Amino acid sequence: MKKVDLILKNATIITCDEKRQILKNKSLVIKDGLILDIGDSQEISLSYETSEVIDVEGKYIFPGLINTHSHLFQVLTKGLGKDRLLWDWLNSSVLKMVPFINPDMAYYAALGGLMENIRSGCTTTLDFNYAHGQPGMFEAVWQAYLDLGIRGYVGRPHHFNDYNGFGTEKKETTDEYINNLYELKKKVKDKDMLDLAIVCPGIPGLLEQYYYDSDYLSKLRQAAQDLEIPYTMHMAETHDDEKYLFPLTGMRCIPFLEKSGFLSDRLVAAHCIKMKKEDIDLFKKYGVKVSHNPVSNMILASGIAPLRRFKKAGIPVSLGNDGAGSNDSNDMIETLKFANLLQKVHHKDPMAFSAHDTLELATNGGARALCRDDIGSLSVGRKADLFVFNPQVLKSCPVVMPVESLVYTGSEANVETVIVNGRIILYEEKFTGIDENEVLEKLHGYACILRQKSGVNE
Amino acid sequence: MKKVDLILKNATIITCDEKRQILKNKSLVIKDGLILDIGDSQEISLSYETSEVIDVEGKYIFPGLINTHSHLFQVLTKGLGKDRLLWDWLNSSVLKMVPFINPDMAYYAALGGLMENIRSGCTTTLDFNYAHGQPGMFEAVWQAYLDLGIRGYVGRPHHFNDYNGFGTEKKETTDEYINNLYELKKKVKDKDMLDLAIVCPGIPGLLEQYYYDSDYLSKLRQAAQDLEIPYTMHMAETHDDEKYLFPLTGMRCIPFLEKSGFLSDRLVAAHCIKMKKEDIDLFKKYGVKVSHNPVSNMILASGIAPLRRFKKAGIPVSLGNDGAGSNDSNDMIETLKFANLLQKVHHKDPMAFSAHDTLELATNGGARALCRDDIGSLSVGRKADLFVFNPQVLKSCPVVMPVESLVYTGSEANVETVIVNGRIILYEEKFTGIDENEVLEKLHGYACILRQKSGVNE
Repeated sequence: MKKVDLILKNATIITCDEKRQILKNKSLVIKDGLILDIGDSQEISLSYETSEVIDVEGKYIFPGLINTHSHLFQVLTKGLGKDRLLWDWLNSSVLKMVPFINPDMAYYAALGGLMENIRSGCTTTLDFNYAHGQPGMFEAVWQAYLDLGIRGYVGRPHHFNDYNGFGTEKKETTDEYINNLYELKKKVKDKDMLDLAIVCPGIPGLLEQYYYDSDYLSKLRQAAQDLEIPYTMHMAETHDDEKYLFPLTGMRCIPFLEKSGFLSDRLVAAHCIKMKKEDIDLFKKYGVKVSHNPVSNMILASGIAPLRRFKKAGIPVSLGNDGAGSNDSNDMIETLKFANLLQKVHHKDPMAFSAHDTLELATNGGARALCRDDIGSLSVGRKADLFVFNPQVLKSCPVVMPVESLVYTGSEANVETVIVNGRIILYEEKFTGIDENEVLEKLHGYACILRQKSGVNE
Repeated sequence: MKKVDLILKNATIITCDEKRQILKNKSLVIKDGLILDIGDSQEISLSYETSEVIDVEGKYIFPGLINTHSHLFQVLTKGLGKDRLLWDWLNSSVLKMVPFINPDMAYYAALGGLMENIRSGCTTTLDFNYAHGQPGMFEAVWQAYLDLGIRGYVGRPHHFNDYNGFGTEKKETTDEYINNLYELKKKVKDKDMLDLAIVCPGIPGLLEQYYYDSDYLSKLRQAAQDLEIPYTMHMAETHDDEKYLFPLTGMRCIPFLEKSGFLSDRLVAAHCIKMKKEDIDLFKKYGVKVSHNPVSNMILASGIAPLRRFKKAGIPVSLGNDGAGSNDSNDMIETLKFANLLQKVHHKDPMAFSAHDTLELATNGGARALCRDDIGSLSVGRKADLFVFNPQVLKSCPVVMPVESLVYTGSEANVETVIVNGRIILYEEKFTGIDENEVLEKLHGYACILRQKSGVNE
């Protein structure tokens, strides 16, 4: 009998492997953060011993969902500046409040947002942090990831200017920024668990930097490749890219990024709605990955991303919930339903996008976006990142098919247990390592302070 | 000190009155199913005495949501036949299973669907029941309403043919059907609480009946007016209306319905997506009400209803979640978010449809659809139908504005207490009069039997 850490027995396992296999009456064995074995429940019980067994009979095991685009600090700006266009919304809420966000606020905002992610089955989150008003913001978000035990990437933004009044932190040259990325990388303890991401400024900020330093964009790409980390940028979210860029360069956004040496397979391109054929061709050529954010795209009326065209071109698409300023939640299961239904109605075709297609965005789509083959599906040797879905709740009952249940009837109420890297971080709907009430109280208090200081009111 | 039944103290009350008033630090007094008073918490405590006080400090009180289109029996067909067009979906799941649904199944399905409604803040549901294979189906649904204590209208369908293999119940002539409506009406004990609705066949079935009896449609309209009850029909949901009707009559659906004497202000027209200007003009002329079903319209790829054009024409629009066969839930809060976001992205305008506009659909929009002025908003003299929303849950926290919190961050997790006609039917997230686990078990068992009998498999 081999000693292992944890066995989940009597499970229906939605593998999200290439064949989309669903395995019934299996046990899943976890050791040292990995899936050590999957087999018939009885055989497994004869082969392994452990002090920890969870019986998940009648329940489903899904791979942990992967969120490739979030702005965790926006938890503090939830509900503000609603019913406005992107730039109006930014200027009337987020950008006014960001200068007043301090590291402790950023820490609790990150905890809150990541906890919402976890409650909705998410086990990996890439945070696009652009609130860098004060020293210590990056470290605060990093600490929130560590304290919760969720997998992910913490975006380190470039403190390159003050164009949005973002605050007081010392400005950095491009080289200072990139040197700091290399310094930070040395401190990464388990890169599979928690690593850096490079947060690239969007078009208006980018242009300013571009005139300082003409190989700026290729330097960012090169750093991401050297450090083997994702780099990420908002693009083609609205027509603003063209509005700012075209008069100055005579080029559209994505051809401009190519010419600047920016495109590669480590790039996670967020939103990607206003995509022309030449843009899609360039993504294909360089292996660029897309992060699709349907809830945010709907709420800001930005538009509908061309997922079918991406699929046809073979471009990997992943899923993000975007910041809670424009969502206003970090609920990845809700995001699945929006992603699915929006494509169906857009194409006037209920077969345009199935439940399985949707789940793929948030599982192996996410893994591909992050250049990983160790997460996003459940098989022996992969990371033990998963969630247990209990279909016996009112909204899902009676249940027929696991994937359809998740996408069309799922909610936080179904997510019973979440395991990341073999460690149980949510058990019977309770966080194992964090006091949820304290987080709620802190968030409420900080949001009040921020609204007062920034003058953003109801 | 006047004796009353219940006081909710220290509330923030979202009245949904004409001025969209939000009242802070108020107490709401309930007696005999009505709101007796709303006033400052201290004054109220000096004027009334009661053995039941609920302190709702920090929480919001919303008017109970009104669901004007559901097919409760479809709870049994949840998750089946997904990713197909309307008629394919019907033929491959719902219509195959309906002949095997018996009254006890219909009873538990209705309980399950209504409980989902209640969990999501809904206090009034109109059920469009077209599963009438066996005697006793109507009575079973009626009993579910009574047992839960929810307000509503139970659709009594016309057993006029067997065109979809719906089963064995004795066929009725038009006069027999209408006479039975009058008989049933005599048994209605509290018409404000629970009454009949007339379920009118959609286009294919309608045509058959039409040839039997050329004043069929005007008779249905007349009965609804005499009995002071809603009558409801699917229309302009897809292009099928035209496909069937035009070759036979040379007319489009809504002008045909006008010519047939069918339109009036008691008509709840469900879906109404493919609306031309002449259709909207006719709705306006006759005071027809719309039931908008965004989730179903998206999942079946039917299209996007023209809510702004309805609003401009002054046509009351209400909200429905449609059946759980095409949703696949009965979650009215989820439906609010879909309604809102779909309009924003469709019009490429985040101001197209605000959180308040959305809530209006499900409150006074619903009341107007049902020709009622006693529900849909909170003021003295109205029915005490409401729900208590706790914003201190992870997905909503931190909270700024009540209506935005409900529409953009709300879920069942926020709905703490639901009161219908002054009676608490959900308290601290638990149903007061029903064993939820028993309902879940029954539904699961019945769904298995149905799939077996009908041959509808995964």
